[in-house]
Amino acid sequence: MKPLRKKNFPVDDVRRFLEPGPIVLVSSAWKGQTNIMTMGWHMMMGFSPSLFGCYIWDQNHSFDLIRKSRQCVINLPTFDLLNKVIGIGNCSGVEVDKFSKFGLTAVAGKKVDAPLIEECYANFECRLYDGSRINKLSLFVWEVVKAHVATSPKYPTTVHYRGEGRFMISGKEIERRSRFRAQNL
Amino acid sequence: MKPLRKKNFPVDDVRRFLEPGPIVLVSSAWKGQTNIMTMGWHMMMGFSPSLFGCYIWDQNHSFDLIRKSRQCVINLPTFDLLNKVIGIGNCSGVEVDKFSKFGLTAVAGKKVDAPLIEECYANFECRLYDGSRINKLSLFVWEVVKAHVATSPKYPTTVHYRGEGRFMISGKEIERRSRFRAQNL
Repeated sequence: MKPLRKKNFPVDDVRRFLEPGPIVLVSSAWKGQTNIMTMGWHMMMGFSPSLFGCYIWDQNHSFDLIRKSRQCVINLPTFDLLNKVIGIGNCSGVEVDKFSKFGLTAVAGKKVDAPLIEECYANFECRLYDGSRINKLSLFVWEVVKAHVATSPKYPTTVHYRGEGRFMISGKEIERRSRFRAQNL
Repeated sequence: MKPLRKKNFPVDDVRRFLEPGPIVLVSSAWKGQTNIMTMGWHMMMGFSPSLFGCYIWDQNHSFDLIRKSRQCVINLPTFDLLNKVIGIGNCSGVEVDKFSKFGLTAVAGKKVDAPLIEECYANFECRLYDGSRINKLSLFVWEVVKAHVATSPKYPTTVHYRGEGRFMISGKEIERRSRFRAQNL
């Protein structure tokens, strides 16, 4: 696979990729150990600061790495990575090194210690913004502090999970700017 | 438009429609007033109870109706309703009755006082489950207490927002059950 060229991207605009609801890969690091998990339960929660909430089950091996490090990277995989995405979600970091098992490349972040996944279309470096509902609701609220996005294509083909082994693949893009009030765009 | 036939749907399975990240319409009622808002910032947060989190900006007219009533209905519109969806997001319930303006039909809920939107593919009746981060993060955590879903098609064509007046339309469906461990499906 040809390596992706990426550039710095405004953190206030990451909704472009996350609001449509794709499956993402969450990478983490703590005391020399790294891991990756597959995640579909997340949402945007603010523009500036750029806030992003997600649910991480406390039985996932990543839970402790993420809770203790108070950092993670949200990586956006495209359709061509689907089998790896499923594989990552169906084994445990207790047993395997997922970067090695799935042939993925860990790249150092600029602002967090968690590694970026080079093969993903975009990487969003996150620091914990609000951890007050981790224990009660498994909710992590992140501030996206640095965003790296591939220069092409403009919109990636993403995968969206329905449960039961079924996915929706992102379809066509349409533009309806003229129907919006300027302040609502 | 032909009326949709809907049936009761298991609340533990609503992720099928919500986890892929579609734009939804939130309907609400408080002291004789109803409203509808367009929303893209939401996520699943549990199966049983069926939990669903969303961000509602405190400047939206719906915010007070929803906060005071501690109820809402999450309605899932399909692509054919896109112009209404955009219109609803670009006017205020302070000025207009959105059911009337957009020709939508309010149907009484079974378990909440907020109205269902008949023209939408699915309707999820919600009661507030955790309001502890409404003030700080504009976060509402709902329990879906009743679900009504159209009997056909199996998967609706939904719209997913990117900001800047741009939408991704849901594409093809694929199934990869054989790659999952049974407990992860």
